[in-house]
Amino acid sequence: MKKLRPEDFSISRLGKAELNSPLGDAKYLSESATAVYSVHPDSLKNEMNEFGRYLSFERAGPREKIFHDPKKSKAAVLTAGGLCPGLNNVIKGLVGTLMESYGVQEVLGIKYGYRGLNPEFGLSPILLTPENVDDIHSDGGTILGSSRGNQDIGVMVDSLVTMDVNMLFCIGGDGTLRGAHAIAAEVQKRNLKISVIGIPKTIDNDISFMQRTFGVETAIYATHPIITCAHNEAKGAYNGVGLIHVMGRDSGFIAALATLANSVVNYCFVPEVPFKLDGPGGFLEHLRKRLAAKQHAVIIIAEGAGQDLFKDMPVQKDASGNVKHNNIGEYLRGGIVAYGREKNFEVSMKYFDPSYVIRSVDARGTDAVYCLLFSQSAVHAAMMGCTDMVVGYWGNDFTHVPIVLATSERKKIDPDMTLWQSVMQITRQPEFK
Amino acid sequence: MKKLRPEDFSISRLGKAELNSPLGDAKYLSESATAVYSVHPDSLKNEMNEFGRYLSFERAGPREKIFHDPKKSKAAVLTAGGLCPGLNNVIKGLVGTLMESYGVQEVLGIKYGYRGLNPEFGLSPILLTPENVDDIHSDGGTILGSSRGNQDIGVMVDSLVTMDVNMLFCIGGDGTLRGAHAIAAEVQKRNLKISVIGIPKTIDNDISFMQRTFGVETAIYATHPIITCAHNEAKGAYNGVGLIHVMGRDSGFIAALATLANSVVNYCFVPEVPFKLDGPGGFLEHLRKRLAAKQHAVIIIAEGAGQDLFKDMPVQKDASGNVKHNNIGEYLRGGIVAYGREKNFEVSMKYFDPSYVIRSVDARGTDAVYCLLFSQSAVHAAMMGCTDMVVGYWGNDFTHVPIVLATSERKKIDPDMTLWQSVMQITRQPEFK
Amino acid sequence: MKKLRPEDFSISRLGKAELNSPLGDAKYLSESATAVYSVHPDSLKNEMNEFGRYLSFERAGPREKIFHDPKKSKAAVLTAGGLCPGLNNVIKGLVGTLMESYGVQEVLGIKYGYRGLNPEFGLSPILLTPENVDDIHSDGGTILGSSRGNQDIGVMVDSLVTMDVNMLFCIGGDGTLRGAHAIAAEVQKRNLKISVIGIPKTIDNDISFMQRTFGVETAIYATHPIITCAHNEAKGAYNGVGLIHVMGRDSGFIAALATLANSVVNYCFVPEVPFKLDGPGGFLEHLRKRLAAKQHAVIIIAEGAGQDLFKDMPVQKDASGNVKHNNIGEYLRGGIVAYGREKNFEVSMKYFDPSYVIRSVDARGTDAVYCLLFSQSAVHAAMMGCTDMVVGYWGNDFTHVPIVLATSERKKIDPDMTLWQSVMQITRQPEFK
Amino acid sequence: MKKLRPEDFSISRLGKAELNSPLGDAKYLSESATAVYSVHPDSLKNEMNEFGRYLSFERAGPREKIFHDPKKSKAAVLTAGGLCPGLNNVIKGLVGTLMESYGVQEVLGIKYGYRGLNPEFGLSPILLTPENVDDIHSDGGTILGSSRGNQDIGVMVDSLVTMDVNMLFCIGGDGTLRGAHAIAAEVQKRNLKISVIGIPKTIDNDISFMQRTFGVETAIYATHPIITCAHNEAKGAYNGVGLIHVMGRDSGFIAALATLANSVVNYCFVPEVPFKLDGPGGFLEHLRKRLAAKQHAVIIIAEGAGQDLFKDMPVQKDASGNVKHNNIGEYLRGGIVAYGREKNFEVSMKYFDPSYVIRSVDARGTDAVYCLLFSQSAVHAAMMGCTDMVVGYWGNDFTHVPIVLATSERKKIDPDMTLWQSVMQITRQPEFK
Repeated sequence: MKKLRPEDFSISRLGKAELNSPLGDAKYLSESATAVYSVHPDSLKNEMNEFGRYLSFERAGPREKIFHDPKKSKAAVLTAGGLCPGLNNVIKGLVGTLMESYGVQEVLGIKYGYRGLNPEFGLSPILLTPENVDDIHSDGGTILGSSRGNQDIGVMVDSLVTMDVNMLFCIGGDGTLRGAHAIAAEVQKRNLKISVIGIPKTIDNDISFMQRTFGVETAIYATHPIITCAHNEAKGAYNGVGLIHVMGRDSGFIAALATLANSVVNYCFVPEVPFKLDGPGGFLEHLRKRLAAKQHAVIIIAEGAGQDLFKDMPVQKDASGNVKHNNIGEYLRGGIVAYGREKNFEVSMKYFDPSYVIRSVDARGTDAVYCLLFSQSAVHAAMMGCTDMVVGYWGNDFTHVPIVLATSERKKIDPDMTLWQSVMQITRQPEFK
Repeated sequence: MKKLRPEDFSISRLGKAELNSPLGDAKYLSESATAVYSVHPDSLKNEMNEFGRYLSFERAGPREKIFHDPKKSKAAVLTAGGLCPGLNNVIKGLVGTLMESYGVQEVLGIKYGYRGLNPEFGLSPILLTPENVDDIHSDGGTILGSSRGNQDIGVMVDSLVTMDVNMLFCIGGDGTLRGAHAIAAEVQKRNLKISVIGIPKTIDNDISFMQRTFGVETAIYATHPIITCAHNEAKGAYNGVGLIHVMGRDSGFIAALATLANSVVNYCFVPEVPFKLDGPGGFLEHLRKRLAAKQHAVIIIAEGAGQDLFKDMPVQKDASGNVKHNNIGEYLRGGIVAYGREKNFEVSMKYFDPSYVIRSVDARGTDAVYCLLFSQSAVHAAMMGCTDMVVGYWGNDFTHVPIVLATSERKKIDPDMTLWQSVMQITRQPEFK
Repeated sequence: MKKLRPEDFSISRLGKAELNSPLGDAKYLSESATAVYSVHPDSLKNEMNEFGRYLSFERAGPREKIFHDPKKSKAAVLTAGGLCPGLNNVIKGLVGTLMESYGVQEVLGIKYGYRGLNPEFGLSPILLTPENVDDIHSDGGTILGSSRGNQDIGVMVDSLVTMDVNMLFCIGGDGTLRGAHAIAAEVQKRNLKISVIGIPKTIDNDISFMQRTFGVETAIYATHPIITCAHNEAKGAYNGVGLIHVMGRDSGFIAALATLANSVVNYCFVPEVPFKLDGPGGFLEHLRKRLAAKQHAVIIIAEGAGQDLFKDMPVQKDASGNVKHNNIGEYLRGGIVAYGREKNFEVSMKYFDPSYVIRSVDARGTDAVYCLLFSQSAVHAAMMGCTDMVVGYWGNDFTHVPIVLATSERKKIDPDMTLWQSVMQITRQPEFK
Repeated sequence: MKKLRPEDFSISRLGKAELNSPLGDAKYLSESATAVYSVHPDSLKNEMNEFGRYLSFERAGPREKIFHDPKKSKAAVLTAGGLCPGLNNVIKGLVGTLMESYGVQEVLGIKYGYRGLNPEFGLSPILLTPENVDDIHSDGGTILGSSRGNQDIGVMVDSLVTMDVNMLFCIGGDGTLRGAHAIAAEVQKRNLKISVIGIPKTIDNDISFMQRTFGVETAIYATHPIITCAHNEAKGAYNGVGLIHVMGRDSGFIAALATLANSVVNYCFVPEVPFKLDGPGGFLEHLRKRLAAKQHAVIIIAEGAGQDLFKDMPVQKDASGNVKHNNIGEYLRGGIVAYGREKNFEVSMKYFDPSYVIRSVDARGTDAVYCLLFSQSAVHAAMMGCTDMVVGYWGNDFTHVPIVLATSERKKIDPDMTLWQSVMQITRQPEFK
């Protein structure tokens, strides 16, 4: 990671916030409220020594002075990238906070992500109201539809201008946020007064500078019935192997958290920790021994794990420009079956690929709370004239994070830290190296 | 279906039931209690005219006189074939009824289906007790393990003799029941006194002469989250298609019932109703039009549907001797994507294959009640000396069904009857012919 | 039960069905299709001897000739009495079958049961369309609202006439059906052509002449988390007692089925089986011994159980005219605690009254299928000009049942039959007499 | 809150940690690893100015040097107070970490909380092993049983000595932790080498110096079906009122979080925010107006809310010495019904008291992860010789918190901060003052 400096944390603003907030009795944060980035004393001391101040995030929350006049404002909301639990909760939260708390008159729902800002697709926005979003929080997916990939930046800004929108909320992951940054930059170049605010959506939990994003909690919860079934199937057959392929392109949080949450998992593989399949210290031989002893095994593998095993194959990319991974789940499935045949032991393979079933459920409980607080934070930020930023969560505070900072690199599991160390402890799997 | 005669309904017995039942205050059925097979007046009149009596099933339930002496009895239980919700409930029900109600001293759990009766696999039976089965009803799968395929009949009967077992309970589907029949025949040939009782397990709901078997209710319930997610995924992308491949080798009950239970399904395909994909009245063109109008579709297809589309491919069989179907789900997935490419419309394909997740959940509610009543009926039947039979359910009664009758042919959806007619009505899909 | 005669099964009709059904390719039932009432041979023979024919229900299903012209028809739907899973499914099924299958132009939703037919409440009906009922099946409760009690019959028929309604669908239990019968009688007296069709809603499963009604399956399913928690609470404290008070005014099906479905229940009490609390053979002393041995107990009791224990108290009635029961749950709770104090043993009482949580969940799985088939049957019946009847289910057929027959007496658990015998077997509770 | 000083954060130790940890390849924390208490820059600067250092928690995690020899160690675990989701997960996590990670030979499960340490109750401890705790994480409640209240401290320490226990893990809330502190103090007085480690269990989320404790996430999740049913019941009747009484003696986190998680709630009442019922600005009149406009309302109230309304009644205490609250739920229920009678508007009251159903479910998903990490942290702390402390969570770190600090005061909702402000925004309820 490149060395951070205080200016990396500073948030762009469209102009001075001079209007009175209509929130009335609300408790406003001070304009300059911040939360420190480092939580360990040594780092804090170093920062103070070097910069004379702490690296700090702006805190999210309502301010007494706002930039946009709610009565003259028109907001637009879009969801982009793959589904994630809580999208509809965030949409509902945005609409409620904009219209009912601030008194914004009109909120547009842009259809199918950035496509809906490109007139060539002919996708008219829909009008969002407290009434028509009232029940959507109980449905997974997104009422707006989503799509991958970006559209021409100039065309999209033209659309915003045509629609007279002065706040754009982009709910999406790394690619979506890069798009939002490009829009914000174009907006600035044209000297427009449009706040572009990201709300981080990443079921992989891989956006940096935020300890947690919405949907992950629900996704881990949703792994429970799947992994329980995998365990039942594995135990239901002689030498049954329940192999579960989950999301996690670059970061294995879902696989690791699902392992800790479901203590029937025997092996966990993530992108951050290489492993070898073959040979004496390899996974296949370890699995053979386990089956001989226990007659069943449950394995969870993130889609981005073990990509070095494909190193001779050509690289492919998806519509969002992400590298398309070779299918490690299918590869491992084949490898295990072939090893059984080679070493003459029976394998009853049960393969699970539950990604859609995990990511398209509705967010509930504290995850739903989280969606709401993210959406409220986003609206407060837009209202005070922030732009080119994404809402984050750090320590115990919602924060403003420059998109450039948030997208500078992926958040990954640190194999030396608690999460992975706990996975190693609970599975008792060796390092396979 | 071949013409039925009264003797097709008669149950084999090991000998005269002369011992007093230990059930005490229980309300005993009369020895000859029966329930009619036909429920429509015309059939009943015809039967009376032709045979002088009605075609009738023996009714299941406790009898005052029993054949086996519980104190000297030793029972064995096995589960075979694929998983199904409720297996553990049935095991628990058998153990409780045998030991706690009748006072049987020992119940053996045979491991991994018929394999456990073949000493060459070295799989010792486990002792089942009310204590060690007390919690198993809350787990899907089977604590005994299962396997497909039969073993040598003589070897298996030798094992039963060696273990001194006088009641064998075989929980399984068509193949398992055929195996049970062969064991019962060999037992009879050797003039042994072993009751062989089947408990029908078929997640496909395809065993004849029983209106309902356990596990189906739970399986349909378990389709709900999957189909909801398929709908969310379909609506979340432009021209999203949620394609769900479910169980149903010869009979499409799961697909049809899941369609009626989840009214978001737009197309349902089952083995009993052929359809064509190509050309003007074919499915693909219909789907194209629907996507143009609605931008999403949800399709459910049973694994045995549309097998005529593969008619030029070689036939394969699985370990139980069942014909292995070509994968119609994958075929349709490819066909839809290819048609989109050919006709130049976008398709965002979301494929679901939830079979394991549907069949390995735990049975609950009235389905759990059903499992219990099936297991109690099986024990009563064994105790009175019945053999070569399987427990059934007809009208409102649990029944005794000769295995030969139950396995004479598969139960299928009748396209002219309520179930399929309702599917047609609710999906409004045409006949695709 | 009074002796039944063939005429008790005959269904009133508004007139001759002479129009062609618009269902097109549907498979029509013959006009006279019936299903026998008795399923045991002896009864059938007796019926034939006495009446020269079998007691039989008309079968529900589409007929080729219908009475009402769909294009000129206007239907009304209401829900009355307490909530039950599946109400919205039935409403949606009615609207879909009426409008999309038959082409009826207008369906009115009457608000809050029979109140909505009394203008003095000022409750305008709402227009139901396939669009506005599209998602309602995933919600428990009823979008129409419900109420208890009847309204003036003449006033209600006036309202139907004013609204120009020619089919009224009343979804409700015993009281609602009696109201529907009174409306049908008044309609006949005025020689109007309004079909009045009941759809049986009874979470208590207590309507006679139908083996099963919608919602019960889901309700039993919904007892699972509650009873599991009661068990956890009971085991979590020294001498913990989980006491669960469930619905069941006159019939204990929910308590009995929940006991069989959740094998952690130790005692089950229903209205049909009296029991004594005090003295040597009484429940309280039995419980004391169980706690001494096991330190916990789980008890389920139906609201109508043990009412003889209150025999000296005055009788009260609710708005529907049902006798209001004394609260046996609270009575038992107090009795157990008092007995502990008297006999000097500790009791940690955990009381559960989950009625609302059981009855207001959404119907799923095969129960949802059942709701749909009930609603389709109701529309077919109305279309063919039937009136003063309620849809039933018998054996394996949906049926037409005269309301007078269905409301002639409550369906109850027969303590001598399988259901209660199984409860006794699984709980091993004595008779407490 | 009293002013905090650095020494308030220091953790007691039994002696110098000089043994090598057996964790092998694990990544050890430095002995002195800490995490700062304050996360806002101004507080940090003040701390540095005043103390020359930051207020900091010791971080939890494995250390290279440990105090207790695992091979000679014997641990004991107990659960006390009310149930909470995750108790069994924590027990399982403790056993696994102690025995499988550290090689401790024996772990005792103390029955029914502190009672099990008082021989007069005759409750022998049970031996916990990885095998017998393997499945317990899927069950709510606690396999050890629980109880309220303390026992004689000297007697309990005698028991620990008799059993030769050198680590005691107390899973419980405020009262339990005070008991643990007293035990640790007595241990110190006798100069024994027994680590006493608390694991914070509080479904009310009311323990200070920890941002989050286990079980809360699951509890909020578990409110979803209840509140959905309350909403269905409220809408299902004319002027239906769904009134939900939830836990929260001193702190209303459950009520507030459940409100944010379930956006159908219209009114939320917590102990921290007084309200008046009567008069023009009071709740009852507001409710009357809402019912006139919307015909239904959903209310959630914490058990400790509105206690000032009972100010003339005598104070009662429970076995743990907690003040027993008057039942505000029943009070409000009666008040609403009476107001309806007084003001002549109909109320259809549906009362819910789901506390047991919320607190005795099993922990899942990220909450289960959390339980595991808490238990691992506790074992690491015990092993390094810490005592008289409880595991906490702060920012993004697990921490060591002196029990005296953690029990110095209850954590409460700050009405000026995000959580309550969001409740006010989403319900739009006024302040009722």
